[in-house]
Amino acid sequence: MRPQEIIAKKRDGGELTDEEIGAFVDGVCDKSWADYQISALVMAMFIRRLSESEGEHLVRSMLYSGEVLDFSDIDKPKADKHSTGGVGDKTSLIIAPVVAACGVAVPMISGRGLGHTGGTLDKLESIPGYNVKLSANEFRNVIDKCGFAMAGQTADIAPADKKLYALRDATATVPYIPLIVASIMSKKLAEGLDALVLDVKTGSGAFMAELSDARELAKAMVKTGERFGVKTQAVISSMDQPLGKYVGNAVEVYECIKILRSEIEPAAMPTWKLSLELSARMLVLTGIEKSLESAKTACTAKLESGEALELFRRNIECQGGDPSVCDDPEKLLDGSIHKFDILAESNGFVSAIDTLAIGNAMCELGGGRTKADDKVDHAVGFTSDVKIGSEIRFGDPVGTVLCRDKVQFDSVENKLRSAYTISRDKPVQVGLILEVIS
Amino acid sequence: MRPQEIIAKKRDGGELTDEEIGAFVDGVCDKSWADYQISALVMAMFIRRLSESEGEHLVRSMLYSGEVLDFSDIDKPKADKHSTGGVGDKTSLIIAPVVAACGVAVPMISGRGLGHTGGTLDKLESIPGYNVKLSANEFRNVIDKCGFAMAGQTADIAPADKKLYALRDATATVPYIPLIVASIMSKKLAEGLDALVLDVKTGSGAFMAELSDARELAKAMVKTGERFGVKTQAVISSMDQPLGKYVGNAVEVYECIKILRSEIEPAAMPTWKLSLELSARMLVLTGIEKSLESAKTACTAKLESGEALELFRRNIECQGGDPSVCDDPEKLLDGSIHKFDILAESNGFVSAIDTLAIGNAMCELGGGRTKADDKVDHAVGFTSDVKIGSEIRFGDPVGTVLCRDKVQFDSVENKLRSAYTISRDKPVQVGLILEVIS
Repeated sequence: MRPQEIIAKKRDGGELTDEEIGAFVDGVCDKSWADYQISALVMAMFIRRLSESEGEHLVRSMLYSGEVLDFSDIDKPKADKHSTGGVGDKTSLIIAPVVAACGVAVPMISGRGLGHTGGTLDKLESIPGYNVKLSANEFRNVIDKCGFAMAGQTADIAPADKKLYALRDATATVPYIPLIVASIMSKKLAEGLDALVLDVKTGSGAFMAELSDARELAKAMVKTGERFGVKTQAVISSMDQPLGKYVGNAVEVYECIKILRSEIEPAAMPTWKLSLELSARMLVLTGIEKSLESAKTACTAKLESGEALELFRRNIECQGGDPSVCDDPEKLLDGSIHKFDILAESNGFVSAIDTLAIGNAMCELGGGRTKADDKVDHAVGFTSDVKIGSEIRFGDPVGTVLCRDKVQFDSVENKLRSAYTISRDKPVQVGLILEVIS
Repeated sequence: MRPQEIIAKKRDGGELTDEEIGAFVDGVCDKSWADYQISALVMAMFIRRLSESEGEHLVRSMLYSGEVLDFSDIDKPKADKHSTGGVGDKTSLIIAPVVAACGVAVPMISGRGLGHTGGTLDKLESIPGYNVKLSANEFRNVIDKCGFAMAGQTADIAPADKKLYALRDATATVPYIPLIVASIMSKKLAEGLDALVLDVKTGSGAFMAELSDARELAKAMVKTGERFGVKTQAVISSMDQPLGKYVGNAVEVYECIKILRSEIEPAAMPTWKLSLELSARMLVLTGIEKSLESAKTACTAKLESGEALELFRRNIECQGGDPSVCDDPEKLLDGSIHKFDILAESNGFVSAIDTLAIGNAMCELGGGRTKADDKVDHAVGFTSDVKIGSEIRFGDPVGTVLCRDKVQFDSVENKLRSAYTISRDKPVQVGLILEVIS
């Protein structure tokens, strides 16, 4: 089957067969399709749309293009969580130890930050020595020892996705739901899970700014998960403001360890609240707990008893990091970093936060990446106690920038200040957990 | 302007501005756009379509991406002919000397064969020593000496087109009229012409199998030519059967020289008839002749007087070839070639000819190319006196294959035989010149 024939069929709005989609994914993996042929077909898929059956076969072909992990000999249910990405979105570091402490194995394959969104791997690497490059064997051993492991995608897992995602990013073909579903689910379904909870973000700092789009994506992913035999639920959560108190790499790990130590600052409460919701749903889906209420009680108990922190400490040890950050989280903070406040220039209530602008400012400070091979500065960041609805006065700090020098601060100060809209009237409060799709 | 932004706009059906189309064409030329970005935009253009204004700006950007020849100091009208390609389509070799003999300068930039269609440059190279790689200066000198020159496109002429065409060929984005127009017209408008006659082929051996598509393409090209100040006409001619008697490289030059020598075999008459029509229209468009009738009379006179042959001889000399082929065209035929007849297996009338199949069989024998860097065997070919409407009996030859050995013949025999449909009833005669668009 020549690439041209398959491309021409989709170009003209035809429905591709399983074999044609398989030939495309094989061509991506074995490089028999040129990049320009891949991108032409992906554009045709984007514009002409994919049927449900085409979407499913795309997931299947991408999933089986690589290795599918098999943890069937682990005598525990296996579950994971995936977030579509946001600003300050650090729940993985809390969920993994909490859920593991409740008796679920969590084989968490995570990504790096790109654009305004952070990545779990980058955050973990701010723990001195922490190694996110695990072989399949090492990954397995870490799960055996502490109930969860957190590592990057190896070349063996869904290899078609890496190439496809890079091309989509360069050719304006990212925002199409069946392609997003195929990208996410081909990786997650390779983890050998019993259950998967998806955190689909919506709002000013999310890829899906509109709730209706987030809902559509959530439904498509849940349907796909179930079709492949994985119990799947999606929580749609608000990304209309950064999640929790800190945005950055080291500071987000700091916030998580503080939570695991039950030292939760008020501005960090939403981080715990969302982590608890997602964790509890993982327990219910795997059958460990009967109800969401009992599951939340169990998770809270594991937090308060210190068992979750203990598992996190053991995980850091297993993955080569310095576990003393669990006892002294201040160690994560770089003493040479400079702190500058962003001051409000009017009186009123915070009525909207341009979360994307905050993510982009962090990226500009070096805390994120604009290209896949950019280096990341783990120490820079942003912290704020101000939320939508907070009352604010002229001269009050809306947040604090952690950066290398005053020049860096100057470059982001105005962008960060104008990310906060201050209005005279108190706005309607925005919810954190908006919908659940199951 | 990032490529992604321009791609996304067209992806969503937007109309690109002159600047955006210019940025795209510049990006193709200076390689700042990756191939996969180019092919993604071209696919979006193909599916979302281009407005008339976008199409015009694409031609303009592609044209001015390179050198535009200036022959304004030549004290003659300048005209050229372009064919959309077919099987046995060899009229350039007759038109150029005939029209030049009538006092028009013909700066003919031609192409090579690809797929089932032959290319003028390949045909010319079967004349021993003939050089089609001329610098702009050499090209100009040849025109001064014999009234016409025939050469390949230099890297300076419409450089975006070469890259774009190769990508379109590999990504199933060739058959879209505004892209075809941009490809053809950006090259032809760079020739510094006063007049251009287009030979748009339709039928079983043409890119535009349907007359309605050929008509649409013809209209679009005429409109474009006129908009850029070049008097332009299009003749829609039939490619429901090979043009003339011979298909191949050396044998087509042979047919042309025989015509220029006024030794026209009956099966070669359509070649002369179409060449005469196109030549005469070039004379009328440039104002050399007032009417089509007087123009045809003038062309016929230049053929019969031998002046056209004399100019062809001079052109061969100027371009480094052996002019004695004009005196002894048999020299062009390779004595070592084998000839095998294709024999009819039923009685009746030829009612249809699968001209594409004949072109593909020639390609298979090595007379054409499937990839741009394939070598061409100039000696192989096919000859037939049989036309649509010819009466045929079981065992009669429908044509003769000129090939290297019996194995080659065996590989194409059945394809060529079944290219001829033999029916009991005499079919309605098919016209050669179907329409004129002006």
